[in-house]
Amino acid sequence: MAQPQKVVLAYSGGLDTSVIAKWLSVERGLEVVTFTADLGQGEEIEPARAKARAMGIPDDHIFIEDVREEFVRDFVFPMMRANARYEGDYLLGTSIARPLISKRLVEIAHQTGADFIAHGATGKGNDQVRFELSAYALDPDIKVIAPWREWDLTSRTSLIAWAEAHQIQVPRDKRGDSPFSTDANLLHTSSEGKVLEDPWEETPDYVYSRTVNPEDAPDQPEYITIDFEKGDGVALNGAAMSAATLLAALNDLGRKHGIGRLDLVENRFVGMKSRGMYETPGGEIYARAHRGIEQITLDRGAAHLKDELMPKYAELIYNGFWFSPEREMLQAAIDHSQDKVTGTVRLKLYKGLASVVGRKSPYSLYSEAHVTFEDDAGAYDQKDAEGFIKLNGLRLRLLSRRNRDA
Amino acid sequence: MAQPQKVVLAYSGGLDTSVIAKWLSVERGLEVVTFTADLGQGEEIEPARAKARAMGIPDDHIFIEDVREEFVRDFVFPMMRANARYEGDYLLGTSIARPLISKRLVEIAHQTGADFIAHGATGKGNDQVRFELSAYALDPDIKVIAPWREWDLTSRTSLIAWAEAHQIQVPRDKRGDSPFSTDANLLHTSSEGKVLEDPWEETPDYVYSRTVNPEDAPDQPEYITIDFEKGDGVALNGAAMSAATLLAALNDLGRKHGIGRLDLVENRFVGMKSRGMYETPGGEIYARAHRGIEQITLDRGAAHLKDELMPKYAELIYNGFWFSPEREMLQAAIDHSQDKVTGTVRLKLYKGLASVVGRKSPYSLYSEAHVTFEDDAGAYDQKDAEGFIKLNGLRLRLLSRRNRDA
Amino acid sequence: MAQPQKVVLAYSGGLDTSVIAKWLSVERGLEVVTFTADLGQGEEIEPARAKARAMGIPDDHIFIEDVREEFVRDFVFPMMRANARYEGDYLLGTSIARPLISKRLVEIAHQTGADFIAHGATGKGNDQVRFELSAYALDPDIKVIAPWREWDLTSRTSLIAWAEAHQIQVPRDKRGDSPFSTDANLLHTSSEGKVLEDPWEETPDYVYSRTVNPEDAPDQPEYITIDFEKGDGVALNGAAMSAATLLAALNDLGRKHGIGRLDLVENRFVGMKSRGMYETPGGEIYARAHRGIEQITLDRGAAHLKDELMPKYAELIYNGFWFSPEREMLQAAIDHSQDKVTGTVRLKLYKGLASVVGRKSPYSLYSEAHVTFEDDAGAYDQKDAEGFIKLNGLRLRLLSRRNRDA
Amino acid sequence: MAQPQKVVLAYSGGLDTSVIAKWLSVERGLEVVTFTADLGQGEEIEPARAKARAMGIPDDHIFIEDVREEFVRDFVFPMMRANARYEGDYLLGTSIARPLISKRLVEIAHQTGADFIAHGATGKGNDQVRFELSAYALDPDIKVIAPWREWDLTSRTSLIAWAEAHQIQVPRDKRGDSPFSTDANLLHTSSEGKVLEDPWEETPDYVYSRTVNPEDAPDQPEYITIDFEKGDGVALNGAAMSAATLLAALNDLGRKHGIGRLDLVENRFVGMKSRGMYETPGGEIYARAHRGIEQITLDRGAAHLKDELMPKYAELIYNGFWFSPEREMLQAAIDHSQDKVTGTVRLKLYKGLASVVGRKSPYSLYSEAHVTFEDDAGAYDQKDAEGFIKLNGLRLRLLSRRNRDA
Repeated sequence: MAQPQKVVLAYSGGLDTSVIAKWLSVERGLEVVTFTADLGQGEEIEPARAKARAMGIPDDHIFIEDVREEFVRDFVFPMMRANARYEGDYLLGTSIARPLISKRLVEIAHQTGADFIAHGATGKGNDQVRFELSAYALDPDIKVIAPWREWDLTSRTSLIAWAEAHQIQVPRDKRGDSPFSTDANLLHTSSEGKVLEDPWEETPDYVYSRTVNPEDAPDQPEYITIDFEKGDGVALNGAAMSAATLLAALNDLGRKHGIGRLDLVENRFVGMKSRGMYETPGGEIYARAHRGIEQITLDRGAAHLKDELMPKYAELIYNGFWFSPEREMLQAAIDHSQDKVTGTVRLKLYKGLASVVGRKSPYSLYSEAHVTFEDDAGAYDQKDAEGFIKLNGLRLRLLSRRNRDA
Repeated sequence: MAQPQKVVLAYSGGLDTSVIAKWLSVERGLEVVTFTADLGQGEEIEPARAKARAMGIPDDHIFIEDVREEFVRDFVFPMMRANARYEGDYLLGTSIARPLISKRLVEIAHQTGADFIAHGATGKGNDQVRFELSAYALDPDIKVIAPWREWDLTSRTSLIAWAEAHQIQVPRDKRGDSPFSTDANLLHTSSEGKVLEDPWEETPDYVYSRTVNPEDAPDQPEYITIDFEKGDGVALNGAAMSAATLLAALNDLGRKHGIGRLDLVENRFVGMKSRGMYETPGGEIYARAHRGIEQITLDRGAAHLKDELMPKYAELIYNGFWFSPEREMLQAAIDHSQDKVTGTVRLKLYKGLASVVGRKSPYSLYSEAHVTFEDDAGAYDQKDAEGFIKLNGLRLRLLSRRNRDA
Repeated sequence: MAQPQKVVLAYSGGLDTSVIAKWLSVERGLEVVTFTADLGQGEEIEPARAKARAMGIPDDHIFIEDVREEFVRDFVFPMMRANARYEGDYLLGTSIARPLISKRLVEIAHQTGADFIAHGATGKGNDQVRFELSAYALDPDIKVIAPWREWDLTSRTSLIAWAEAHQIQVPRDKRGDSPFSTDANLLHTSSEGKVLEDPWEETPDYVYSRTVNPEDAPDQPEYITIDFEKGDGVALNGAAMSAATLLAALNDLGRKHGIGRLDLVENRFVGMKSRGMYETPGGEIYARAHRGIEQITLDRGAAHLKDELMPKYAELIYNGFWFSPEREMLQAAIDHSQDKVTGTVRLKLYKGLASVVGRKSPYSLYSEAHVTFEDDAGAYDQKDAEGFIKLNGLRLRLLSRRNRDA
Repeated sequence: MAQPQKVVLAYSGGLDTSVIAKWLSVERGLEVVTFTADLGQGEEIEPARAKARAMGIPDDHIFIEDVREEFVRDFVFPMMRANARYEGDYLLGTSIARPLISKRLVEIAHQTGADFIAHGATGKGNDQVRFELSAYALDPDIKVIAPWREWDLTSRTSLIAWAEAHQIQVPRDKRGDSPFSTDANLLHTSSEGKVLEDPWEETPDYVYSRTVNPEDAPDQPEYITIDFEKGDGVALNGAAMSAATLLAALNDLGRKHGIGRLDLVENRFVGMKSRGMYETPGGEIYARAHRGIEQITLDRGAAHLKDELMPKYAELIYNGFWFSPEREMLQAAIDHSQDKVTGTVRLKLYKGLASVVGRKSPYSLYSEAHVTFEDDAGAYDQKDAEGFIKLNGLRLRLLSRRNRDA
């Protein structure tokens, strides 16, 4: 008898992916390997082990890993170097986690001899695309199973019935419909669906989980500093820390001061609009700080080129093209610009605001000698401006003359 | 004897441009025509008439105009349609006013038979470029005089001495150096220089003039609505109002809630970095509201193209190229996108934050039927996603295979 | 009994679409309406009428139209205003014809009360995408049938067998495999497949149908002029002619001189590479002439913006997004630039080369007074260049100093 | 007595730069160091030594170098990786040589203790900008002397009179006005001025020096192959050769077949249009070959990103910003894409045409299995196309419905 084929499942330990694990085994006849990652979602991941065991998955088929450091160092920070915001605002908290998960799924597939990977994303969202494009980019022969696109357990009732019929424990709070759904990692928590579906209605306060309401935040502002080296954060208030530790510490600060809430109607890659609520407390602080240090360390040419490239870069990440030549090309350009993005930014945190109030750097390009209203001791000859304007204006004058005379 | 040639001066009524007016007459032998515009800078402009008269300028050489409505309708709002922010943040409050002033200077020059225009911008800043490029674009033969680049009155002491020697009244508060310099109009107030010159030092509170400190703003949030039609704001809280009236009303709201402060180190067109403090209370609210209404009324293709074009568009305005073919081309593209940008945005104002909390439109592209987790009655076939992903991924798989096999 | 539903088929009169017409009727139970367009493909379209009749299609279900003028005026020329070339070379001859066909299919569907449209494009190519995206953009409820993606007549043998079984006449030359397949219209002929499938092998001479081999072209060059008005060609050698007439005349010239052959490996939207041979005789001449007239009539700002936007514009057309907001936005920008693109271009045609050798315009921006090495009588002050360079270089000097001192 | 300061002059050995050398010494009291580079301009550079000596310049102040290999390897080839063409056509032959010359001028200045560099470019052209921006980027304190912007020897007559008065030999053919001026290096020869100043007049045949007239080229086509490794040419017809040797060999081929002539009206950075005639025989062949090898080795995402970035990249080089952060960022992106741009291109050269007729690569992404009309053995599922189109079209349908219903 042929050995059953293997599938590596992105397994959260929750009800949905537990049903998927069972379904892959029962309905598709596959041997299931689970991968559970600690991306900083704020929940214990060890319970996933017991749940996997309870479904009969052998220990050597259960992969549980803390990838927080890799996540921030190799995915979040490179993205932050680009000042990436999708559609002007969204810090891409969900989008940036998917490629890492896919990368590990594919690696574990290779390690365990699996031909398949599987995920629990639905057929309406962006995450399926991100999971699958990442996987295809890393292994052209990998096969992907997306049960939500295939099965008929499309209502909560049918899903729960199937779970119970297959001895999967259904937590009491999962029996009814949840009023919204969430995704969380060290960078952000997103919420969407149900109570958020009318974009005219304000998001109810109970949807927020990662930040206090700005109205409940401290009445006193708090000042902090972040140190950067070559474009990446390395210290908070002078204390050196790892990438993930820094982001976690900024999350605590952001939570306390109600920073990083975003109510957005965005355009999904699959063609529809959706309304989401994002909380990116540390990320929002970090993003503003990064722009702050760039203000004095990046040359205008580099800064403007980065701004021009950013929308495309953000779109690539949002659409799932992290592992694509064009994202890597843009990253190469962006990274090239960060060599001297080193120094310290001071921010004021207050009731939802994270404001850069100071920045300094050993590599500062800011020249008080040039900008001062005072006598600048020859640093700058104001008469140069005349020629500068004259030649910048020459084509406009030729045009104006042509249009007048014609 | 030859008639003296005429010059039209952008005249604020302040000390500096009064000295310039006199200097143009005394040192350059020109007949001076003054143009004073109410751009919403918050100061009376009529006093400029008396000051001009006091220097012997005849009444028919004194032009004093309220251009607030034109400013907001024809310059600020078109720019806002583009969601323009220079270097990620700056709402271009000074940049957008200069082309209008130049336009009137040139028009008055034609009307009065003047060959010259003059302005009071220094040789280190962007404003000289904006004034002059605009003028050259509108009249290829206009001649521009920029006294700050030419004369030797480069210290405050020498300027005041010259003023007194020529019977120009020097206000007491202009005798010493001012701790910073400002520019103001209906869109914003900018401050720069002196106490702001060290970008590591936080801006002192006394620099702000248009907004309360968020810490002093009301403890209760305030909700407002803004109505848009074809991309432009037309009503506040349901009350229709003109462009300038709307922006003024938003300024009052922004001032009260401490909204729109920005501390920025930016790159000037002339090649140096400068640190500025901007207050754009109404503009910040308006800009966020405009993005809010676009979220539900703009198609993704239009929205993303706008985002890609924005940095260049903002740079053009910052650098003084409002009257250029490329700005007009971009405007044509942007304006084409705004035809259905109509509807209502609801915002929450609170201690420096202006957050979009709801948006609705008769032209909404948001489809609850498509996005819902519930059964969508056939609006969307999840199975389509498979083919979508497969073909989006095909090139990545071919690439991955090539890289593996090579 | 329910009335059968109707489908409007893009019908060439050839074997494949005849089989499709029958198949839609027999297998899908639809009432077939045919649409046959003269796009300048160089074949009679009237025979399609007899063939349709022979399949039992009633006269009022047979639509045969000459759309050449609309094709060139409303599709080809607007695209040429953008100097569009996909992947640096391809003049988009096939891509630009599809939206027009879809537009007529949808219009005829509305006119005849049809719910469906159908086309004969395969599931591997770009044309299916272009047909369908255009249709969806024009009618969100239209339903599209693409038999090549659905049926099992995927080999030539099975197709011919089905045809004969259903009394469709199979021309002798369609019985065997054709060595390549073609698409033609007034702008170009494309060939692909079979003998072209190895991109290392040179295209055999018998593949070409629209141009003589340059080696067989006249030994004497021929000079022509094309007149443009507002960006569009209006006259050849001084003789005014309509858009389609002009393109046809240029095709004759291009054919004679062996102009416009292109051997390309291109990237399809569906994710694979394909190798095609294009002949665009008149289009190549026209495209070069258009650039020629722009050289003297477009300002640099407009010209460079156009060049930056072009790749995206071309990609949109190639991918089937002619009827999209972003293509229309780009078109608005491009069209805005063409207002003064008026004048005459002189070209030399010789053995595959179409070279611009002269251009003149009442709106020329070229100023001999400025460019001359001779004394320019004050048109240009060379000393202005110093300030221009100094300020353009200021940021580079600050950067260089920073990098040296750091 | 103070030591005179030193200046390093870009010295061609021709009349103009000889006059400059003398003028710098006589009028500016500087000690002159000359730098003469063999960039492949096709003239001996050793005679410059004797001429410099004749002006009394000591041997250790005379620098004569063959930089052809560096020129092609470090400047031309990197630029060719980007497929750079300014304003759609110009291969940037002059622009790309200037940074190298400036780099050596600055290096020699450091080596010899010079504070100044000098060049012989006029105040109307782009070259002054390229020389000076490059120099400032490499040494923020370098001082540049551009005699043509400063002196009064602005007519040929006065220049020759000054030369004779200072014992500089004036060649007979330099006594009258030359009918046009040229610049040459291994990549190209450019000609402009005088007989070329009317853009309506065809360039006279005697202007060309690097190519035969296509009409005089061989009647038989010639086939060649070029091998590429990681984006750079490495062999001609299978024979490995250095960068400069390859380009020289292609120049010979291009000359023989009349390839690479370009008549262009272009936009100078200083604001005016100029008309130039370029001959880039080897460069044109190389540029087409490079695109040919990219066609099969570059993924679409990389290829399209390159096409989008190219106009800006070309503009930067044209404007003199080779040594700028933004050019380097773009280069980093471009170079990242070239890792697998390896293989062989076959071209047909015939009477001005250089046509790619074949390309092959061990890293080819072209998949006959995917593209074939034949049964593809499961490589591609045509049914995937339906979902692909449906979801690409979803936003267009939502838009269409909105526009219809509103």
